[in-house]
Amino acid sequence: MSYKKKDFPTHNVRRFLEVGPIVLVSSAHKGETNIMTMGWHMVMEFSPSLVGCLISSGNHSFEIIKASRQCVINLPTEDLATTVVKIGNTSGRNIDKFKTFALTPKPAEQVRAPLIDECYANFECRLSDSSWVGKYNVFVFEVVKAHVAASPKYPKTIHYRGDGEFMISGENTSRWRRLFRPGML
Amino acid sequence: MSYKKKDFPTHNVRRFLEVGPIVLVSSAHKGETNIMTMGWHMVMEFSPSLVGCLISSGNHSFEIIKASRQCVINLPTEDLATTVVKIGNTSGRNIDKFKTFALTPKPAEQVRAPLIDECYANFECRLSDSSWVGKYNVFVFEVVKAHVAASPKYPKTIHYRGDGEFMISGENTSRWRRLFRPGML
Repeated sequence: MSYKKKDFPTHNVRRFLEVGPIVLVSSAHKGETNIMTMGWHMVMEFSPSLVGCLISSGNHSFEIIKASRQCVINLPTEDLATTVVKIGNTSGRNIDKFKTFALTPKPAEQVRAPLIDECYANFECRLSDSSWVGKYNVFVFEVVKAHVAASPKYPKTIHYRGDGEFMISGENTSRWRRLFRPGML
Repeated sequence: MSYKKKDFPTHNVRRFLEVGPIVLVSSAHKGETNIMTMGWHMVMEFSPSLVGCLISSGNHSFEIIKASRQCVINLPTEDLATTVVKIGNTSGRNIDKFKTFALTPKPAEQVRAPLIDECYANFECRLSDSSWVGKYNVFVFEVVKAHVAASPKYPKTIHYRGDGEFMISGENTSRWRRLFRPGML
């Protein structure tokens, strides 16, 4: 699928990440690019826009991201599920993932890691805090630029349960919105 | 709704948390209990079973959890959505949330914080690492005991998008499972 994208406020990436989708992390260092799937991540702050990400040191991407101190968090939709799983079951040590899976690397604005053009959204990230990389493989990134599809408003995302099982995002609703205090919105 | 629960392996709580649901965090200290809603959390390790949780210092629960070094992460389903939103829009400084929202506190096995009986699952937690509490309000908990409903297999969970909007969990599928390498399952 091809999405037409617009700039999106970085402080509001929680709109897409807080719901817990599997994402694709793209990276680049010294002429090499890579992509990994990631399910363990959390929003940590609105502004600066911080996201905590667990990138296991066994992944080829770990060294690329540790050295380059950058990445792009890309949000795939259900149409890419087969590719997402294949990316998670191969290693960039052996293959060029962009070529093997026919994904389009698109230059980012603020980082050297490429955007994955086929994804619904792309969040350009710079490493903000590496103090838990050694302890937990947790990187804290600052989202410095966000690109989000102009439509649809609600992407159909895939969420991992482990053991090969996924949950696909369902209904979106604001029917409980009237229960919020104004300051909480 | 009332769920009949069974013991569940703590190393596999990712099955429910990795998909990104809103959870209810219950806590207790010196005879006082509280409940808060939480959307910013991430699985960090299988064994020990670690979960990173962002609990803003503005919440009444922050002090209770910091002092008691324990909590229970409870997984509510869609039938509790109204209560979940109300819990997130009130403060335990002013009300007893168990009483106000007619929730049943049930004694936990490993911690003094109570389980919320009406939730689909309850994960008893002990504080494992407080080194990012001051910096980011991030607590790393170890899940020391897990209770999960015997059925249904797939709970209908609610996922927050910000601005009063929620996504409700949709279809569950293992149709991409055949693409996994055995070692990745």
